[in-house]
Amino acid sequence: MAGDSEFDRDTAVTRREPGVYDIDLSAGWTIINAVNGGYLLSVLGRALADTLPHPDPFTVSAHYLTASQPGPAVVRTETVRTGRTLSTGQASLFQCDDEGNEVERIRVLASYGDLTTLPDDVRTTAAPPPIPPLEQCFGPDDAPAPIPGSSAITDRLMLKLDPATLGWALGAPSGKGEMRAWFGLADGRDADPLSLLLTVDALPPTAFEIGLKGWVPTVELTVHVRHRPAPGPLRVSITTRNLAGGFLEEDAEVWDSEDRLVAQSRQLARVRLG
Amino acid sequence: MAGDSEFDRDTAVTRREPGVYDIDLSAGWTIINAVNGGYLLSVLGRALADTLPHPDPFTVSAHYLTASQPGPAVVRTETVRTGRTLSTGQASLFQCDDEGNEVERIRVLASYGDLTTLPDDVRTTAAPPPIPPLEQCFGPDDAPAPIPGSSAITDRLMLKLDPATLGWALGAPSGKGEMRAWFGLADGRDADPLSLLLTVDALPPTAFEIGLKGWVPTVELTVHVRHRPAPGPLRVSITTRNLAGGFLEEDAEVWDSEDRLVAQSRQLARVRLG
Repeated sequence: MAGDSEFDRDTAVTRREPGVYDIDLSAGWTIINAVNGGYLLSVLGRALADTLPHPDPFTVSAHYLTASQPGPAVVRTETVRTGRTLSTGQASLFQCDDEGNEVERIRVLASYGDLTTLPDDVRTTAAPPPIPPLEQCFGPDDAPAPIPGSSAITDRLMLKLDPATLGWALGAPSGKGEMRAWFGLADGRDADPLSLLLTVDALPPTAFEIGLKGWVPTVELTVHVRHRPAPGPLRVSITTRNLAGGFLEEDAEVWDSEDRLVAQSRQLARVRLG
Repeated sequence: MAGDSEFDRDTAVTRREPGVYDIDLSAGWTIINAVNGGYLLSVLGRALADTLPHPDPFTVSAHYLTASQPGPAVVRTETVRTGRTLSTGQASLFQCDDEGNEVERIRVLASYGDLTTLPDDVRTTAAPPPIPPLEQCFGPDDAPAPIPGSSAITDRLMLKLDPATLGWALGAPSGKGEMRAWFGLADGRDADPLSLLLTVDALPPTAFEIGLKGWVPTVELTVHVRHRPAPGPLRVSITTRNLAGGFLEEDAEVWDSEDRLVAQSRQLARVRLG
């Protein structure tokens, strides 16, 4: 059912010419008025999947330049290197300002491969996050208090937050830089490597649990996709260990229904005290 | 003494024209025959510091394309965006192949700022790595057994490995993906944000302690510089939690003599079984 899902429809890019893609950024993936950075990363990831000879993002590094708005955008891609196992590409997303000048929103470097060709060996000390069963977690609709900042994107996500990391929504943040949730797409579309680029940046900021309000814009976000996710809800754990000098890191892990670590990400974000 | 240090001499770039820099990659920073990826990142970081209006790398994302060789290279930089607090640039390092064709070695996206302007607030749950005093750690010269793969770079580093992560050198790897060391530059040059780009990639691969031999080439490496390091030796901790499908991540933390987390990095590397 991938083809007709909200995620696939809203990340669909139209090739105008080789390496140039048109996209209408959907207002359906906004938080307050900002277009979600993970949604934007999925759009760029789809354009690169069309440009490069390999299908799956293995590592994607995005530097966020200016705030994107819902509406028309252009993605320009470049093939940097093609190899047997990996190929590397670059992509930028542009929108026009009021004077009609193109403004670059995001620039991405990414190395793509084919997850289905990787050997099955796994040696890991990583363990799935401690999170209660899905039915004991809370979403925007059934939270004891309405979750501040709930926005259009919440209608498109199945997001159930671990009560242990929901204190901020009740005015009692834990003080720990942790955010955990069950994650899926609201229309039931299964996760795949492209949707994982959205998943790593779809939870509320860990800064809320540290007791900070206000916005936490992403400066840079790098995602490693490590395995093709199995069907079923994902578990996402985000941790911030070091808030210093007005910046913090957010480390995300995404686990699939077969207890495999399918994605890791880290972002550097600015703390804008509200 | 920064100016006349080995590190500053060997990372010095000469501006040929705006955005184009010449560099002679030193053979003094090679491991076996490969030019160290952290040294290369410092070279690119210096070129970007000259190009961008801000002095310090805040976040640098590098995708490694082909193996660099000692000798002449050209760095081309581009200013992507300049802002009040942050500016973003791109840089690529090229070398000529036997036919005289330029081959791209590394491409980097980086956001720079000014660490001296950041507020002093620190809220961290991160703790310095458990590592014995420097005099109880082992370097290439005083290790109980000569460290395999010791190379030219070891003459330029003060690298003292935690005995607990040195089992691989004795043929008895711990099986844990951990590597810890005291780090400095051999000629006593103090650490700064540029040299931290070298520090995060200067330890032996964690794969050795997992029991893997062979090479572990970096696919992508992202570094966050979080604070200007204080003088004195640094402590570096590198952890691998997930080896899967022939790839692994290496998370590095660098701590300064005042117990501040001055840099965090993560790389995705390929496991080439030797």
